[in-house]
Amino acid sequence: MEASSSSVIKARITAGLQAVKRNSGKTYGQIADETGLTNVYVAQLLRRQAQLKPATAPSLRAALPGLTEEHLNEMMQPPLRSYDPNLIQEPTVYRLHEAVMHFGESIKEIINEEFGDGIMSAIDFYCSVDKVKGVDGKDRAVVTFDGKYLPYTEQVIVITDIQIIFNLFAIISCIMLLLIELILTNRSVGI
Amino acid sequence: MEASSSSVIKARITAGLQAVKRNSGKTYGQIADETGLTNVYVAQLLRRQAQLKPATAPSLRAALPGLTEEHLNEMMQPPLRSYDPNLIQEPTVYRLHEAVMHFGESIKEIINEEFGDGIMSAIDFYCSVDKVKGVDGKDRAVVTFDGKYLPYTEQVIVITDIQIIFNLFAIISCIMLLLIELILTNRSVGI
Amino acid sequence: MEASSSSVIKARITAGLQAVKRNSGKTYGQIADETGLTNVYVAQLLRRQAQLKPATAPSLRAALPGLTEEHLNEMMQPPLRSYDPNLIQEPTVYRLHEAVMHFGESIKEIINEEFGDGIMSAIDFYCSVDKVKGVDGKDRAVVTFDGKYLPYTEQVIVITDIQIIFNLFAIISCIMLLLIELILTNRSVGI
Amino acid sequence: MEASSSSVIKARITAGLQAVKRNSGKTYGQIADETGLTNVYVAQLLRRQAQLKPATAPSLRAALPGLTEEHLNEMMQPPLRSYDPNLIQEPTVYRLHEAVMHFGESIKEIINEEFGDGIMSAIDFYCSVDKVKGVDGKDRAVVTFDGKYLPYTEQVIVITDIQIIFNLFAIISCIMLLLIELILTNRSVGI
Amino acid sequence: MEASSSSVIKARITAGLQAVKRNSGKTYGQIADETGLTNVYVAQLLRRQAQLKPATAPSLRAALPGLTEEHLNEMMQPPLRSYDPNLIQEPTVYRLHEAVMHFGESIKEIINEEFGDGIMSAIDFYCSVDKVKGVDGKDRAVVTFDGKYLPYTEQVIVITDIQIIFNLFAIISCIMLLLIELILTNRSVGI
Amino acid sequence: MEASSSSVIKARITAGLQAVKRNSGKTYGQIADETGLTNVYVAQLLRRQAQLKPATAPSLRAALPGLTEEHLNEMMQPPLRSYDPNLIQEPTVYRLHEAVMHFGESIKEIINEEFGDGIMSAIDFYCSVDKVKGVDGKDRAVVTFDGKYLPYTEQVIVITDIQIIFNLFAIISCIMLLLIELILTNRSVGI
Amino acid sequence: MEASSSSVIKARITAGLQAVKRNSGKTYGQIADETGLTNVYVAQLLRRQAQLKPATAPSLRAALPGLTEEHLNEMMQPPLRSYDPNLIQEPTVYRLHEAVMHFGESIKEIINEEFGDGIMSAIDFYCSVDKVKGVDGKDRAVVTFDGKYLPYTEQVIVITDIQIIFNLFAIISCIMLLLIELILTNRSVGI
Amino acid sequence: MEASSSSVIKARITAGLQAVKRNSGKTYGQIADETGLTNVYVAQLLRRQAQLKPATAPSLRAALPGLTEEHLNEMMQPPLRSYDPNLIQEPTVYRLHEAVMHFGESIKEIINEEFGDGIMSAIDFYCSVDKVKGVDGKDRAVVTFDGKYLPYTEQVIVITDIQIIFNLFAIISCIMLLLIELILTNRSVGI
Amino acid sequence: MEASSSSVIKARITAGLQAVKRNSGKTYGQIADETGLTNVYVAQLLRRQAQLKPATAPSLRAALPGLTEEHLNEMMQPPLRSYDPNLIQEPTVYRLHEAVMHFGESIKEIINEEFGDGIMSAIDFYCSVDKVKGVDGKDRAVVTFDGKYLPYTEQVIVITDIQIIFNLFAIISCIMLLLIELILTNRSVGI
Amino acid sequence: MEASSSSVIKARITAGLQAVKRNSGKTYGQIADETGLTNVYVAQLLRRQAQLKPATAPSLRAALPGLTEEHLNEMMQPPLRSYDPNLIQEPTVYRLHEAVMHFGESIKEIINEEFGDGIMSAIDFYCSVDKVKGVDGKDRAVVTFDGKYLPYTEQVIVITDIQIIFNLFAIISCIMLLLIELILTNRSVGI
Repeated sequence: MEASSSSVIKARITAGLQAVKRNSGKTYGQIADETGLTNVYVAQLLRRQAQLKPATAPSLRAALPGLTEEHLNEMMQPPLRSYDPNLIQEPTVYRLHEAVMHFGESIKEIINEEFGDGIMSAIDFYCSVDKVKGVDGKDRAVVTFDGKYLPYTEQVIVITDIQIIFNLFAIISCIMLLLIELILTNRSVGI
Repeated sequence: MEASSSSVIKARITAGLQAVKRNSGKTYGQIADETGLTNVYVAQLLRRQAQLKPATAPSLRAALPGLTEEHLNEMMQPPLRSYDPNLIQEPTVYRLHEAVMHFGESIKEIINEEFGDGIMSAIDFYCSVDKVKGVDGKDRAVVTFDGKYLPYTEQVIVITDIQIIFNLFAIISCIMLLLIELILTNRSVGI
Repeated sequence: MEASSSSVIKARITAGLQAVKRNSGKTYGQIADETGLTNVYVAQLLRRQAQLKPATAPSLRAALPGLTEEHLNEMMQPPLRSYDPNLIQEPTVYRLHEAVMHFGESIKEIINEEFGDGIMSAIDFYCSVDKVKGVDGKDRAVVTFDGKYLPYTEQVIVITDIQIIFNLFAIISCIMLLLIELILTNRSVGI
Repeated sequence: MEASSSSVIKARITAGLQAVKRNSGKTYGQIADETGLTNVYVAQLLRRQAQLKPATAPSLRAALPGLTEEHLNEMMQPPLRSYDPNLIQEPTVYRLHEAVMHFGESIKEIINEEFGDGIMSAIDFYCSVDKVKGVDGKDRAVVTFDGKYLPYTEQVIVITDIQIIFNLFAIISCIMLLLIELILTNRSVGI
Repeated sequence: MEASSSSVIKARITAGLQAVKRNSGKTYGQIADETGLTNVYVAQLLRRQAQLKPATAPSLRAALPGLTEEHLNEMMQPPLRSYDPNLIQEPTVYRLHEAVMHFGESIKEIINEEFGDGIMSAIDFYCSVDKVKGVDGKDRAVVTFDGKYLPYTEQVIVITDIQIIFNLFAIISCIMLLLIELILTNRSVGI
Repeated sequence: MEASSSSVIKARITAGLQAVKRNSGKTYGQIADETGLTNVYVAQLLRRQAQLKPATAPSLRAALPGLTEEHLNEMMQPPLRSYDPNLIQEPTVYRLHEAVMHFGESIKEIINEEFGDGIMSAIDFYCSVDKVKGVDGKDRAVVTFDGKYLPYTEQVIVITDIQIIFNLFAIISCIMLLLIELILTNRSVGI
Repeated sequence: MEASSSSVIKARITAGLQAVKRNSGKTYGQIADETGLTNVYVAQLLRRQAQLKPATAPSLRAALPGLTEEHLNEMMQPPLRSYDPNLIQEPTVYRLHEAVMHFGESIKEIINEEFGDGIMSAIDFYCSVDKVKGVDGKDRAVVTFDGKYLPYTEQVIVITDIQIIFNLFAIISCIMLLLIELILTNRSVGI
Repeated sequence: MEASSSSVIKARITAGLQAVKRNSGKTYGQIADETGLTNVYVAQLLRRQAQLKPATAPSLRAALPGLTEEHLNEMMQPPLRSYDPNLIQEPTVYRLHEAVMHFGESIKEIINEEFGDGIMSAIDFYCSVDKVKGVDGKDRAVVTFDGKYLPYTEQVIVITDIQIIFNLFAIISCIMLLLIELILTNRSVGI
Repeated sequence: MEASSSSVIKARITAGLQAVKRNSGKTYGQIADETGLTNVYVAQLLRRQAQLKPATAPSLRAALPGLTEEHLNEMMQPPLRSYDPNLIQEPTVYRLHEAVMHFGESIKEIINEEFGDGIMSAIDFYCSVDKVKGVDGKDRAVVTFDGKYLPYTEQVIVITDIQIIFNLFAIISCIMLLLIELILTNRSVGI
Repeated sequence: MEASSSSVIKARITAGLQAVKRNSGKTYGQIADETGLTNVYVAQLLRRQAQLKPATAPSLRAALPGLTEEHLNEMMQPPLRSYDPNLIQEPTVYRLHEAVMHFGESIKEIINEEFGDGIMSAIDFYCSVDKVKGVDGKDRAVVTFDGKYLPYTEQVIVITDIQIIFNLFAIISCIMLLLIELILTNRSVGI
């Protein structure tokens, strides 16, 4: 029903950023090395799945001189994170999905045993792909998901600032009323 | 339509194995240390998502004395790997799924750049959960997916053994036929 | 495929906890007042959607004397959070879902404008239902979702502890080797 | 099958309205302050998810001078409320959805206990996003859903106006017939 | 995942209520006539899709003497409204669904033209099935959906009671402080 | 896979018809009054969800003089009835859908009790939206679905015309053969 | 959510009816011949997908003497028509579904060309399976769907009986009032 | 993900073919009569759901002179059979689907009883729509599905040609080797 | 909605058959060798996905003496072919599915090029799993799908037997009528 | 949400490659013969579902001289493997899918029995379509899936290189420290 105009804009910008990278002849890994970012994060930046931080913009531009001022401004906006649902057809993506679903309950229980009742954040989160040698000398891909542990909070009723101030006012008011009463009494007495 | 009988059996066995672990008072991590397996793999064994190798059975039994001979025999069968589709509701599992889908295209492209046209196997594959400290001193969960790189094969037409033997026979037969002809000719000549 | 045994157990326990509440004759609001928890959180505890903290167990037991030791032990385990997907048919739940989907993009953009590139956590999160009077004197329900703001992290390559120690060892070793060499030289010189 | 023409029009208008806001350099919060609307409602107006009331048009135009007469006329039409189903991928939206589904049954039961058999309206409804400080001094987002309580009606058979008039006519007719009969009788008597 | 215990209870109760009706030999229409309810509402009551109001309980019991005290108590609880998603296969239900979807946009636009920007409530709502004769003398079923019109509210920022009281206190306090100051000054002056 | 060309044509025509109506400044209700059609049916005609009958074309054209000959010719074709599946997101449409699904089994049973084993047709079917006053003086929308009752036929084996003729021929043939035989016998006798 | 009790009852009854047929050793075709019903209809009756008409009950019982009085009573109730959605996996059912979907638009257009704007009813409907020989002498299955043509009605505003009576009363009343007035005048005159 | 280029081409060609038919002023039935094809098959040809056989091309061109050489060449390619999934919304198509699903299990069992374990082919398959008169003199649509019966094969291990030749060679080779040996022996003997 | 009773029976029988195989200690491959069936077909027989042919029953019973007469009778019924939709989670099954979907269009086009417009039957179909050595000496699994080519038929209007007989009768009748007329004439003449 | 720009590019390139093939007048089989690839693999290359290896590029260009340098460069990039989900409607693809799902559990169990706990790879994988004659002389299509067997790894904790080096350093360091201590002692002793 809604032909989201933002998605069309996103696709066009992403295509432009990918072209800049292609023209640079550099890999994500090389750009990662030059900018001090993880390789996955560089790739996310170049398809508008992550926000470019102002402090990082200069090093990214140095690594990819083809990036225009307009590109950088766009990349510094908080993106609308999204994906094509059919991406799950892609064999690499499917195998990660398969691992997550088949291992999911085990991962959840180990987090509970090691940390308590909480989860691994996907926001305060790092992801990287590494190439290592297995014991048989063959290449292995290591995908690391490194997220902050977030414990579930106990939802106690908190006395918020506003309530404290409110209560304070009530107490002060009472005291003042007493004071006034006292003063008045005194005054009458004093007279 | 098909009330899969194997799934009912699997659920019953898993419940039994979980009870053994609960009674042992040990965590997956402790059993992992005692058996030399990863913590996730121990958890997978105890819900019949992985096959117990004969060589590992003694150490697992030592770690979990409550396991019966029947348990071990069952655990050494290749399992029917499966999961409840609603597991994706579970917040820890969802966040891993979210990361896979949002980072999927980037991970895929980096594997292409670093390794070539291929994927990370989910079969020759290790998974573990580690607890580390972040730079802010807070706990972080690190989920590692470590799979063999599998390059896509070029599908060339291969001359299989059977074809080689077949061709050999054809050649031998031809030679023999020539020989026979020669012999017969010679013989007639010889007479 | 997988007739999850844990879900059957969860349903049975939840039924038991609900019976205890029903027999107590108390509302969630009353229990909330007696325990200092939000009303929604009390309801979540009594259907095993939240973990009972040890410090809160006594006050909950005081509020619901029908709870057994076994109930409390079970409630202190990290739960497997889940829901029946058909729950979306329920008119109250649907209207909340409708609001989330129709207002979703607006809420997201306002969080971006007010906080930056990040989200509202659903883990460090409070939920409560309040009954207020509207300007027309009619009852209104106020559902409050109060979650910690989680900024997306920039995924920079971090020098972890292990790498620091590793590098340290390398430096120390170099120094020691130099020392040894020096000593040996000296010794030979000394002899 | 139906390439809904109204959705294409909506997307084009929304893109135009967003551009006006972007050019104004104002946040939703600033426009909300200037117009006396909630921040979420302003955002809904600017993506054609809510109808602009005539009385509010002047203040909105004052806040966003870039809005043309045509923009305002369009915004005063009842919109076709809709959303892209993939919006659920967006992490902020998903977490709200997750909360609604995991807390749904509890919210429903508390509404029943506090109000009776009814729901929270999503039509006579306010939504706002607030930025508050948590007890740890960290930022928190508070999303408030404030809807009128709607009790389920008991579906009794109502005597509608039309039936009352109908019955009245029947009664009147009967009386008149009696009258006529009486008159005629009288007349005959009278003769 | 969640084998909702409440749904099992609901199914059992519904089966009991249907048996009571079957044994009574009465149709929904007859019970409707005896209780003053619509025929659909009676059917909803007897499958726990509506709450029995205390005032109606006596007449329902009179119509269905087989109903026990326990039945009536259960029927007076707010129900968890639900349906089997496969119900859409049922030809009568499908045809209603077909009509709603094919006529939906037209109905929506006519409501907008006749009432303004709002909807027909499904909560303050009556439904009945009538049997009428068509112009060809054949039977026709008339399903009437009669719901209150709910206009979308404009989400203006309201000054709530709490804010008024708060502001009042602030004003009163200021006045009192001035008073105290005045008094004290006076007193000192008075001395 | 199939980018249905007819749907693109339908969307274009519908947009044209809607523009004619918008330019006329008339509501569906006014056009309904001028043409003697129901308001919903007028709206269906103007989005090509119903076929314009030749006898009605003049009065529709009178009501909407902007309609061209081409418009009318197109409107007299049997349409491909369709809808955008996302239309279910629209709150008015959803509430009707909700009512159909939650009340569905009850409506079905009442039709069975009142009429027998059959359904309400959605083809020989009228739909209208009315605005009435509730007992509280508030506006209510009444959506009426009025469909012919269609009893399920008992599928008996019918002797179709073709079979009757076939059997007739068989009988006639037999008679004729007898006749011929008789004649021939007679003839031989006669000779 | 709703464990529909009626579906459990239906499954149990169907199992009983199928056992009666199995024990009789007859095929659906034989029972069809003995009862004058189509073979598909007999099969539908024996899985409670069609209602047994009272007039047919004796012949069915004669064909299947194992049917009890209870069976027949149950079979004479209007059934809740339903199917297992996984039935589409069954190769015969899938191929029919495939034909319907691939030929659907063509069938629809031919009905429009041959009959007008309407559909083939699935209620006033016959279905049978026949075994014929193809031109190659091989067996062919012929599935015949024979349904009444239902033209879409033009939704004109009809003056219903109730309105006619209402108008009549109004006219009669007016006349009577005039009469009364006349009489009274006359009377006064007459005096 | 894949914007199938073949589907866009198919839609364009279908639009062209439909225009040729529309301009011809003929119905599918008329073209069927002129070409000796079933009416449904003609419709399938004109939306590229069936392949035009070379022998039929002349008669089709005679019936539709507007068809160009290019049209015919395209129509003689094996098509990619497909449909818009939303087609199921169309009432005629839905009713056929409804019949297939509700009658599916019965049709399957009757095929089993009449033919054995096999299915009705949807490939060696005829479909036609006929207009007949019912016993009440009303029009009825008869959709006939006539497919070859395909029995499930028993999957026995077959000795394929290749294996036979292979074995033959082995036998021949053995014989030849014996012959050679014999000859050589003889020769030596013979010398 | 429909708790298919046949599926429960199927699951129970399959469990029994699997137990017989397990007790025999034989693999599917061994049973295949003893019965002359493919290994996959043996496995299908033992989960009621294929019908046991009477001629094969003795050899299967010889291979699996644990099979009872009842087992064999059940296995000789045409089965209701079905599968658990979650089976697609199983990694082996998923990879086959992945191959079918990713290679599907290519396989289809090659069949068109090599055979014409038709498909590979899944009914006259063999499936087997073989273990071979790859060129690298590693094990490879070869899954062979071997199905009869089925060409799409051109749907010409065929003169069926019934029509031929009908026409014959018509001709014979005409001739006979002429004959009778002739005879009668002759007779009259002859007199 | 995300209008994936890469999919649009892929569709355009595929259309170009298909045009080159069409213009060449060659079948996939002919190109396969000329390049030494399987026929399915050639088809996959020409719709960008496989990566062209540099060594194969010359022979492919020789077979298809219409391929430009740009085509070949594009074909040598790792593709984003994908498919249109509606492809499952295509009868050939559906029948393969049907076979995979109905035979899936059997294939899985046979792989377990013949190989152990592992799967058939879909990456180190060959696929081909062959045309053979059946025992009845009719054409049969043989689709062969030939994939490497991948055993599930046991996830033991491996001492990686980094840990070995680390431990080595620790040991060396200890030894060196001892040595230094010894030397120093000796030295002091030696003095």
